[in-house]
Amino acid sequence: MIQSENPQSLIAFLRKLRAVRQFRAEKLPQDAIDAILDVARWSGSASNRQHWEIVVIQQRSTLQALAACEGYAKHLAGAALGIILVMAGEPGLEEQETYDEGRLSERLMLAAEAYGIGSCIGWLRGQGVQEAKTLLGIPQERLVRTAISFGYPDEEARRARPKNVHARKPLSEIVHFERYA
Amino acid sequence: MIQSENPQSLIAFLRKLRAVRQFRAEKLPQDAIDAILDVARWSGSASNRQHWEIVVIQQRSTLQALAACEGYAKHLAGAALGIILVMAGEPGLEEQETYDEGRLSERLMLAAEAYGIGSCIGWLRGQGVQEAKTLLGIPQERLVRTAISFGYPDEEARRARPKNVHARKPLSEIVHFERYA
Repeated sequence: MIQSENPQSLIAFLRKLRAVRQFRAEKLPQDAIDAILDVARWSGSASNRQHWEIVVIQQRSTLQALAACEGYAKHLAGAALGIILVMAGEPGLEEQETYDEGRLSERLMLAAEAYGIGSCIGWLRGQGVQEAKTLLGIPQERLVRTAISFGYPDEEARRARPKNVHARKPLSEIVHFERYA
Repeated sequence: MIQSENPQSLIAFLRKLRAVRQFRAEKLPQDAIDAILDVARWSGSASNRQHWEIVVIQQRSTLQALAACEGYAKHLAGAALGIILVMAGEPGLEEQETYDEGRLSERLMLAAEAYGIGSCIGWLRGQGVQEAKTLLGIPQERLVRTAISFGYPDEEARRARPKNVHARKPLSEIVHFERYA
């Protein structure tokens, strides 16, 4: 029973996840990659549909080509490993797939964090979706949107960023008890 | 540095999250509630928009009224605590809000799990959305969809469920390396 042993350290682990965009070139160990994928496998989804597939990319040329696709995934160029989420694209289930894609993404980032590996979500947009499908051989009907970069954080680049970039609202601004108003 | 101490136990923690729908009546301790909300506060969102608010409900009558709303959140009736996510509802940002709502939901469930507290996501649908907004005083323009039930698992009820209800596909069916096809 891990959770009863030390809830506080698990909470600290969950709390401290932050997006990392600058990575060291170092490869990721295979056991970490395997564990991250296994956490993905056990993600929850509406009616347990598991309506996802995952493309794992480590070839620099492919990561660079994906980073050049239209959207917000330029950080893939410097990642040690990139993941493209491929959702089923079932007509009428866009809302469920989008929500479950968010759940899956969060787990992937946390699983990486367990190994001290940083990550960052980017979305392919506009023509970038089609470009990525062509590049990776993904069938037309699938829903492709999320690219996640993984790698050991480049701490030096990180320290150079403005300190308040990750600030959050105080709890009093987001939490209501019993009623909204 | 928690993550470097024991990645395996963190991975085991992430892997074992399962939806729990049957709860003991026992109240949740305030420190657990505070920690769950703080994990929510630190969730990541597109452009750090933090486009969410959270309504926390412990009054049995309100939980029962919400459980009776149209949708899939009947499990709220027996929950020790329920959370309704209130997304900003900004026009044109439905996709981002839905995805980030998924990310936030996953964190809330994991934070609960850290304390041995079970949880289950339900969606309000159809008239249920309007009913919940009226019940909780949530402004019309907000996006209301997700209800999450929390409580200590009723292990007896859990053991009575079919064993394969949480089965997952093997990794070979969901993971592709370098290319989809």
